[in-house]
Amino acid sequence: MIPTITVFEWVPDFARGYVRDMRARWAFEETGQDYAVDVIDFDRVKSPAHRRFQPFGQVPSYRDDAVEIFESGAIALHIARAAPGLLPADPAGQARAEQWVIAALNSVEPYVMQLAVVDIFEADRAWSAERRPKVIEDIRGRLVDLSAALGDKDWLDNSFTVGDLTMVCVLRGLHDSRLLEEFPNLAAYVARGEARPAYARALAAHLADFAAEPVAA
Amino acid sequence: MIPTITVFEWVPDFARGYVRDMRARWAFEETGQDYAVDVIDFDRVKSPAHRRFQPFGQVPSYRDDAVEIFESGAIALHIARAAPGLLPADPAGQARAEQWVIAALNSVEPYVMQLAVVDIFEADRAWSAERRPKVIEDIRGRLVDLSAALGDKDWLDNSFTVGDLTMVCVLRGLHDSRLLEEFPNLAAYVARGEARPAYARALAAHLADFAAEPVAA
Repeated sequence: MIPTITVFEWVPDFARGYVRDMRARWAFEETGQDYAVDVIDFDRVKSPAHRRFQPFGQVPSYRDDAVEIFESGAIALHIARAAPGLLPADPAGQARAEQWVIAALNSVEPYVMQLAVVDIFEADRAWSAERRPKVIEDIRGRLVDLSAALGDKDWLDNSFTVGDLTMVCVLRGLHDSRLLEEFPNLAAYVARGEARPAYARALAAHLADFAAEPVAA
Repeated sequence: MIPTITVFEWVPDFARGYVRDMRARWAFEETGQDYAVDVIDFDRVKSPAHRRFQPFGQVPSYRDDAVEIFESGAIALHIARAAPGLLPADPAGQARAEQWVIAALNSVEPYVMQLAVVDIFEADRAWSAERRPKVIEDIRGRLVDLSAALGDKDWLDNSFTVGDLTMVCVLRGLHDSRLLEEFPNLAAYVARGEARPAYARALAAHLADFAAEPVAA
């Protein structure tokens, strides 16, 4: 079978462009691999049948003839290993690319996600307004360090890797906050990622697969 | 050079056993690889010289003759690939092990970490007491899913992998909360991990390397 990922049939406007199947789609496009999508709704994503592939009831999950996995970071790494384009040829470079994937997922995204928590998922909670400045302060701390690590380089290592792909996807979650504007090298880094033709193809396909309205069960 | 990780010279009692060099030490022990430690203090971990290896000014970072990386998850995977013991022989099993490493770091640990935020790092903030029940509710949601995925198996896949090593380290962060007691299969899973001889050796070495008191600069 052609490698297949699950994607949502519909999400609200604010989530379009940001659902994590973008990471898999972009990796497929950078490495020139064909893929198929299995479009699922909110009922099916939480069903026991889908949770067998994705225990947390989310998208994307990934299947090919040999492998069934979940976690967008693991999926992006799996796609990156299947064809050239997202990993250096040398083992040390591959280890550093994987390091940046995990840094994006464990040292940056948990902070970025807290902004979505206070602004969206817990916007109606009594504590969110009071807590928000601390969330911003924590994100800014991570951006200071990441900005220093990037310096004046185009990418986090010598060439664009699956680590940059993952980091750009995570940092894009800060667009509305305007925090990236405080770090011109990071803003330019995200813009460089978003300017890649493979990114544009992934985004177009991601958006095209959404229904206009949620489909009634 | 012998593979070398940075570790802290001193941490407060509540953090002993939980600093992330445990993940690297345990991986070394499971795979029977010798390693050395570079014991550093809080000043040096934040220094430009160390940030060149670890941009976020944390431990552990890892060096050998070929590779310099940071991120405990990437380090554990790198150690797991260097010798048998933590990864299945088949590529599909390896992909699933990597999936569980990333699930621990991106789908479970960000929730667990919020408990340390409200109980320790932001314990003095006005919102923490009010927010804490929601933090517990979110963690419980993840544990429901993880408990279902584990079922009655000993490990998340067919045998103990670097994915279990990482997940057990993440779940150990819940010991004080008693949340694991609500999920007997997860409590038993963590206990099985902690009962491994390699874990005991890693923990003993981790604890032995701490100074009794912070050393004056």
